[in-house]
Amino acid sequence: MNITNNQNETSVFPIGNRGSAEWFSGEVHVQGLVSPEQMEGLYNVGQVTFSPGGRTHWHTHPIGQVLLVIEGEGWYQERGEPAQVLTKGTTIAIPKDVEHWHGASADSKMVHIAISNMFEGSNVTWMTPVTDEEYAEVSK
Amino acid sequence: MNITNNQNETSVFPIGNRGSAEWFSGEVHVQGLVSPEQMEGLYNVGQVTFSPGGRTHWHTHPIGQVLLVIEGEGWYQERGEPAQVLTKGTTIAIPKDVEHWHGASADSKMVHIAISNMFEGSNVTWMTPVTDEEYAEVSK
Repeated sequence: MNITNNQNETSVFPIGNRGSAEWFSGEVHVQGLVSPEQMEGLYNVGQVTFSPGGRTHWHTHPIGQVLLVIEGEGWYQERGEPAQVLTKGTTIAIPKDVEHWHGASADSKMVHIAISNMFEGSNVTWMTPVTDEEYAEVSK
Repeated sequence: MNITNNQNETSVFPIGNRGSAEWFSGEVHVQGLVSPEQMEGLYNVGQVTFSPGGRTHWHTHPIGQVLLVIEGEGWYQERGEPAQVLTKGTTIAIPKDVEHWHGASADSKMVHIAISNMFEGSNVTWMTPVTDEEYAEVSK
């Protein structure tokens, strides 16, 4: 049994460390919660906090990913599809190999838990940034 | 992509339906969030809300389970081990085949997200109830 007690004033879990600019635009923080080694290599679990305007790059997952939005407001968009609004309580089951991005709205933070399924040592393939033009388009 | 928007005033997700007395003692509510069919058969994800004194029966998981405590206070105990306090922000990675129970404290509700890994169509083996004597022992 692995047990960790975390708490801060603003969210359920600590905000964690700044996410890499290789994968995120704007201010994004990532807090690991469960590693694959703790759960039979199946997935990792983490909390991602997007400051207003912060977002992932376009990416895919080899087996899929679950997002559980626990705070704030934001966007989820699959390539070629309209963006979906994310709010506290939104659950998304992202299928494998579907190109997409997620992030905060322009004027609100957004916090989600992510369950990222592992396949051959990886759980994501990163692609190009979501441009300011693409981001402006969804928030019109 | 499967998307669900849920919200209520007191928790991140809706409280859901009353859990069966075959598996729980006291007042426990379960809200499904992601089914195995939505995520390659790997696991299901749900929210469990334990009213004060509410708890699971003793049980095991064939591949393991992750608990993410998002509200309240409670207990996690493995057979033969001291009970661990659960509070908002506690993360537990429960190994496979370890007999244990979890629930609320006697004077507080406890809400957790559970990620329950599937093995041959099942994610849990239920055992005997946690008796009032066993429960009183941990909350001394």
